[in-house]
Amino acid sequence: MSTPSQVAPVTLAAIQRPVRAELDAAFAELGRIVRSDFPLIEAVNAHLLRIKGKMFRPTLLLLSAKAVERMGPSKTALAAAVELIHVATLVHDDSVDHSVLRRGQPTVNARFSHQIAVIMGDYLYSRAIIELVNQPDPEALRVMSRVTNDMTVGEMRELEAYDALDYSMDAYTALIRAKTASLMSGACEVGAVGAPPAQRVALRDYGTHLGMAFQITDDVLDYTETERVTGKPSGLDLKEHKITLPLIAGLPHMSAAERQRVSAVMADPEPTDETVADVIGIVHARGGVSAARAQAAAYAERAAAALAVVSEGEARDALGDCITYAVERRS
Amino acid sequence: MSTPSQVAPVTLAAIQRPVRAELDAAFAELGRIVRSDFPLIEAVNAHLLRIKGKMFRPTLLLLSAKAVERMGPSKTALAAAVELIHVATLVHDDSVDHSVLRRGQPTVNARFSHQIAVIMGDYLYSRAIIELVNQPDPEALRVMSRVTNDMTVGEMRELEAYDALDYSMDAYTALIRAKTASLMSGACEVGAVGAPPAQRVALRDYGTHLGMAFQITDDVLDYTETERVTGKPSGLDLKEHKITLPLIAGLPHMSAAERQRVSAVMADPEPTDETVADVIGIVHARGGVSAARAQAAAYAERAAAALAVVSEGEARDALGDCITYAVERRS
Repeated sequence: MSTPSQVAPVTLAAIQRPVRAELDAAFAELGRIVRSDFPLIEAVNAHLLRIKGKMFRPTLLLLSAKAVERMGPSKTALAAAVELIHVATLVHDDSVDHSVLRRGQPTVNARFSHQIAVIMGDYLYSRAIIELVNQPDPEALRVMSRVTNDMTVGEMRELEAYDALDYSMDAYTALIRAKTASLMSGACEVGAVGAPPAQRVALRDYGTHLGMAFQITDDVLDYTETERVTGKPSGLDLKEHKITLPLIAGLPHMSAAERQRVSAVMADPEPTDETVADVIGIVHARGGVSAARAQAAAYAERAAAALAVVSEGEARDALGDCITYAVERRS
Repeated sequence: MSTPSQVAPVTLAAIQRPVRAELDAAFAELGRIVRSDFPLIEAVNAHLLRIKGKMFRPTLLLLSAKAVERMGPSKTALAAAVELIHVATLVHDDSVDHSVLRRGQPTVNARFSHQIAVIMGDYLYSRAIIELVNQPDPEALRVMSRVTNDMTVGEMRELEAYDALDYSMDAYTALIRAKTASLMSGACEVGAVGAPPAQRVALRDYGTHLGMAFQITDDVLDYTETERVTGKPSGLDLKEHKITLPLIAGLPHMSAAERQRVSAVMADPEPTDETVADVIGIVHARGGVSAARAQAAAYAERAAAALAVVSEGEARDALGDCITYAVERRS
């Protein structure tokens, strides 16, 4: 049934093994932090807690804490708060994007209402802040308040990443740094709060590079993934006129006629699967996908290099595996 | 031109006189706190800063600080952060309610977009948190994180205050306490951080009672105000099927036939001015408006009583005038 492979694929379960107990404690803590005596809020909480995500950001936080020997009860609470901020962001994102599904389940805006999604995002975020304020060391809150503000700037930047074929590499880089890399970086840095500055800086940088590689891989998957499985690319970003790295990297190498076909898709409110597949083919042919993969690999290398400052051990190994997971995952 | 009156009306300008300089500094500070190098965010900032509000909450904070002799540069920054949290809340409220005007100007959702309003509210709120984290004393952040969470619960409660004629007095009280009184209370308490506990508690309680009186007065105005000016009540809450204190207080004294007329308005997606005016008439006749006014007056008395702990002086006098302003204002 399985394809023979030289190396076993990196699984999230294996990555999480060194911090399994703390991760489970963090999830339980999360349930406690969001609890309310108001039934409507509890209904949304129950819905959200059913859709337990991958807990990737708390994993980064806890592995970072373990890697620099700063694990402790407060790190569990911080891991819960960081996941909660992530969830609050997703609730608002889905509402802003009018998404109806997330992790295969109805979004809060779809299952409840758009109003409830906006208010609930605020509720969850302010609960996370309360949790962070109650930590003995204000450093984690300092990091996370900056990170959450960066994420809102990333969201705002994302609004401009549509339609415009002149969307620049710099704008794309600033966007994914703010939207994705900032939170992963913040999770790692918060894990390392209390460690010597060099280790904290190294883990912060590791998280930034990892986040960049993670988001670029996400954007590449949209140009490749379903193709492998069904023979037909998904191209959801293109359908929504969203400009990402493969297209940005491929555009300068396209002929005028090819650019014209890309423009036509951007001008079409509902591009067909055929025209989208055509543009995906052009982007592949003009090296956009391989250039994007190369950028992800470069960030992955920088993330790995940042880990050199951290002592060897199973936590550092797992952080190394997170890089492999980020760039090799298929969903 | 003006109506002769026994006592001169309390104006906001007069109330703000003892803290005029600090209030102006807080507004300038606010502009600094929200600044961004991203053009779209700056465009929304410019729009929001043009619509300078009454600055009532920072006024409460600064008068409280002055009344307990804890004024200082950090109070100016806190006043700015509290106003910013208020503005962030309004931006999300307007988006949730699909409001198009606020203080006579287009709302962010109307002038920009719904997406931008949701993201911008998050941006402003996280900027306020960063400002609060940077304060030397974490107490203000502790108070404000609780308050902002309370406000989200109030928003959620408000969603249930529609259509249901069995909406209870307790539910209404919990709603306005969370939605309105919590922030006014928080503003006063933050102003008093650093003062002896008895004074801090007194000002917190003063703010709570003031906020309750303020919101009840707001809800009464909807049943009375335009009537005085144009001879026709506005009744916007009734038109939107929103249940507030005058109706809750009047309902138990209505005949079955009168209740039927109220139900009919609630069942009508777009009630006419005539049917709304009919229900307003019933609510007046059954004592709903006077009962609500009596409740506002009772809260006003409790607010005034709470001030007794604070030393006499122009700041305490101005806080007393805030009570008069809250219950006597006509808009």
